[in-house]
Amino acid sequence: MTEQATIEQDAIQRFAAILGPKGIMTDPDDISPWVSDWRGRYHGAARAILSPATTREVADCVALAAELRIALVPQGGNTSMVGGATPPADGSALILSLRRMNQIRSLSTDDNLAVCEAGVILANLHDAAEAAGRRFPLSLGAKGSATIGGLVSTNAGGTQVLRHGTMRALVEGIEAVLPDGSIFDGLDALKKDNRGYDIKQLLIGAEGTLGVITAATLRLVPAIAARAVGWIGVQTPADALALLRLVESELGDSVEGFEVIADDGLGHVLSHIPGTRSPIETRTPWHVLVEVDHGDMREPGPTERLEGALGLALERGIAIDAAIAASEAQADAFWRIRESLSESEKAQGPALQYDISVPVPRMPAFMTEAAAAAEVAFPGTSASSFGHLGDGNVHFHVRAPRGTSDGPAWITAQGQAINAFVHDAVVAAGGSISAEHGIGQMKRAELGRLASPARIHALRAIKAAFDPDGIMNPDKLIPRPDEG
Amino acid sequence: MTEQATIEQDAIQRFAAILGPKGIMTDPDDISPWVSDWRGRYHGAARAILSPATTREVADCVALAAELRIALVPQGGNTSMVGGATPPADGSALILSLRRMNQIRSLSTDDNLAVCEAGVILANLHDAAEAAGRRFPLSLGAKGSATIGGLVSTNAGGTQVLRHGTMRALVEGIEAVLPDGSIFDGLDALKKDNRGYDIKQLLIGAEGTLGVITAATLRLVPAIAARAVGWIGVQTPADALALLRLVESELGDSVEGFEVIADDGLGHVLSHIPGTRSPIETRTPWHVLVEVDHGDMREPGPTERLEGALGLALERGIAIDAAIAASEAQADAFWRIRESLSESEKAQGPALQYDISVPVPRMPAFMTEAAAAAEVAFPGTSASSFGHLGDGNVHFHVRAPRGTSDGPAWITAQGQAINAFVHDAVVAAGGSISAEHGIGQMKRAELGRLASPARIHALRAIKAAFDPDGIMNPDKLIPRPDEG
Repeated sequence: MTEQATIEQDAIQRFAAILGPKGIMTDPDDISPWVSDWRGRYHGAARAILSPATTREVADCVALAAELRIALVPQGGNTSMVGGATPPADGSALILSLRRMNQIRSLSTDDNLAVCEAGVILANLHDAAEAAGRRFPLSLGAKGSATIGGLVSTNAGGTQVLRHGTMRALVEGIEAVLPDGSIFDGLDALKKDNRGYDIKQLLIGAEGTLGVITAATLRLVPAIAARAVGWIGVQTPADALALLRLVESELGDSVEGFEVIADDGLGHVLSHIPGTRSPIETRTPWHVLVEVDHGDMREPGPTERLEGALGLALERGIAIDAAIAASEAQADAFWRIRESLSESEKAQGPALQYDISVPVPRMPAFMTEAAAAAEVAFPGTSASSFGHLGDGNVHFHVRAPRGTSDGPAWITAQGQAINAFVHDAVVAAGGSISAEHGIGQMKRAELGRLASPARIHALRAIKAAFDPDGIMNPDKLIPRPDEG
Repeated sequence: MTEQATIEQDAIQRFAAILGPKGIMTDPDDISPWVSDWRGRYHGAARAILSPATTREVADCVALAAELRIALVPQGGNTSMVGGATPPADGSALILSLRRMNQIRSLSTDDNLAVCEAGVILANLHDAAEAAGRRFPLSLGAKGSATIGGLVSTNAGGTQVLRHGTMRALVEGIEAVLPDGSIFDGLDALKKDNRGYDIKQLLIGAEGTLGVITAATLRLVPAIAARAVGWIGVQTPADALALLRLVESELGDSVEGFEVIADDGLGHVLSHIPGTRSPIETRTPWHVLVEVDHGDMREPGPTERLEGALGLALERGIAIDAAIAASEAQADAFWRIRESLSESEKAQGPALQYDISVPVPRMPAFMTEAAAAAEVAFPGTSASSFGHLGDGNVHFHVRAPRGTSDGPAWITAQGQAINAFVHDAVVAAGGSISAEHGIGQMKRAELGRLASPARIHALRAIKAAFDPDGIMNPDKLIPRPDEG
């Protein structure tokens, strides 16, 4: 048993006085869904969940926490992949939920901006933007529960990063409560502002360790007026990269998605997911899924333009076979293959999955060489990769040897060594051990092992400067002293 | 006389041992051009200019400076508008010139990236990109002497920000020496990287107060294949904004410039600059200059598309008259009017000039109301604005009363009151008192007076965390204790 830290009843009552009865939960049954991460890997404890309804209430809670030296764990939809929103197991922290702050304060089609409170659920922003004839161009699997505050705090990505960037590129302004309880009011969307260090950029991706994001001004883009989705068979990842360069050069900014898939992966989908079929006749070692979008109805449309580019690719021998979806239903079917990869991979047995990125030009070599090296180093395993070639972020999987029945035991025995092997290969390729998911608790020690002393020193110095008492999301992101 | 701080000869010799004879200047005649800013407003003193040739030499110099507690003032082309690269007058600092680090380490048309050392002059990067069939889309008046290190450190802007963003949006990676002499190696261009706080974004725009940028990975874009330049007469700044929204909606990402000019300003150009003529026949109170660029030769080209959009604007009564340049020579002539505005305004007499931004939707009201209010508050003055409406950054000028012969005396008498008046209006409109030029020495006290306590606290905390001994570019950017 972990020793339980005591937060006195008196302290809870002072928070309750700020928040009122709707703003605090202390019943263990109400709290329990929120103290573990959604994948059940991290388990914490908290005596209360604070649920402020306004920025002022957040500021008052943080100021009181600073006075009492009680740590706070900010939480949105609790969909972290790295244990980033799970409180410590010793009960020394309270959860600060932003879910009640769920207003879209404004949405303007004139300047294409939406001001959203931290607790707005991503899918709700999608709907509001669509209703106004616009689009918020960031989406991911957890969109039905992930909140804007969490998405900003983790600099979320998704499948549209190639064209629109990560959350960092879509945030035009931020409102946040800093660890001393002061309010940083930076919601005004200024395209040019050189008043010193960019505090906004520092808070984006800080995983709640420097303060609590309470609202953000987000950029909207035109709705998709017309799209074309293509499937292309290629020989190698290097050819897939050559194809990316060709379509970028021919189609410019309208390339919205560019995913690479191994033939193995396609095979798993076709055998496990009912109703799927290969978009092309020819059997090729690698496949590419590309989407081209236009925000207007200009001619030539995306289909004609994609046809032109793929014609060139076939002529030049970069592509072996290609198909363009003839209908929206077929376009959805192409995407369904890509979206079913994770599920069908799971059916192949236990696997370790890595969220990594390397510079795009080095990705083809990484995909083939790191996979081969991992299979040699860990006999019986099979390694594969798929995903967003266009932004240098592939999902890299190492599957347990065929016939492994006890997945958790295999991970306990081999996990740390395989993690280190893959992460070392990523660092050698100039890459990042966390492309999308952040550091949280899960990658803290690996960050400490692999980041340069200058980077770690900078992270610690910033954390200490903003949060000298360590009350904001403790034990996340910053390597502990014994972790490098 | 300012009291002179002493930097011992022994210290100079230790720097010389790191840098060799080519790497240090100690002759006062060699030093003197670099201790004042180019507009002659700030005058400093320095016993030596250190000129390292490599990142290693920069790191060794900074480590030695940290050991000896000697302050360093990083300097590129010395083109700061706010005294940002001028050393203190007491001689307590040395200049660290990056001009010898002038290599373009690589330029790849495959991934459209250039890795430039800090001392590369902007015009040289323009030339190198052009020779490779690409373009670096940031330009400004000082391009023949401004260096990449200075441009990154000040998050420079220019006329192409509407489409391509400021330097912040063009930097894909950074190498820097931190104040303890450690090297931050972040040159790899990763589109997705969530390993904690974004140190790169923190160094961009930090004006050399958190470390020395030694190199940057910069994004290139396609060369311009075809452009269209239009001149439009409108009734009000609000109509200019409506026109901006219309061309953005019709032409999307291809709008590269959108400048607004008062008829007064056009009049001054026509009377002072030989060979200029108004692009349109009708006399209108306000004018817009718009440029539309295509990176390829697709049809319809930019001229046809701009014609379509301006046709709509005339139909809807947003525009009164419009002309599209019929040749490159005519396009250059349209731009020449815009580029001559500052010069011809100068001929009108002494003026105070402000580099400010407000949110784009509030810009039309600001342009008319703040100007009218300034003229009422300071009788006899005339206030005007022109510039980049598209990015919310206009040049706001307050001219001395007609007949003022002693400009400097007028500025001494009225400057501080007018500055405060204009900056208060900017803050009231949710804007920034420094859109492009940074804070440096010039705006430090005004930043202290006007920024929120949370922002100032954050700036000071970051500075103290990175540079506890205050050796990096002292007295710049961070308000002094007595300044708020």
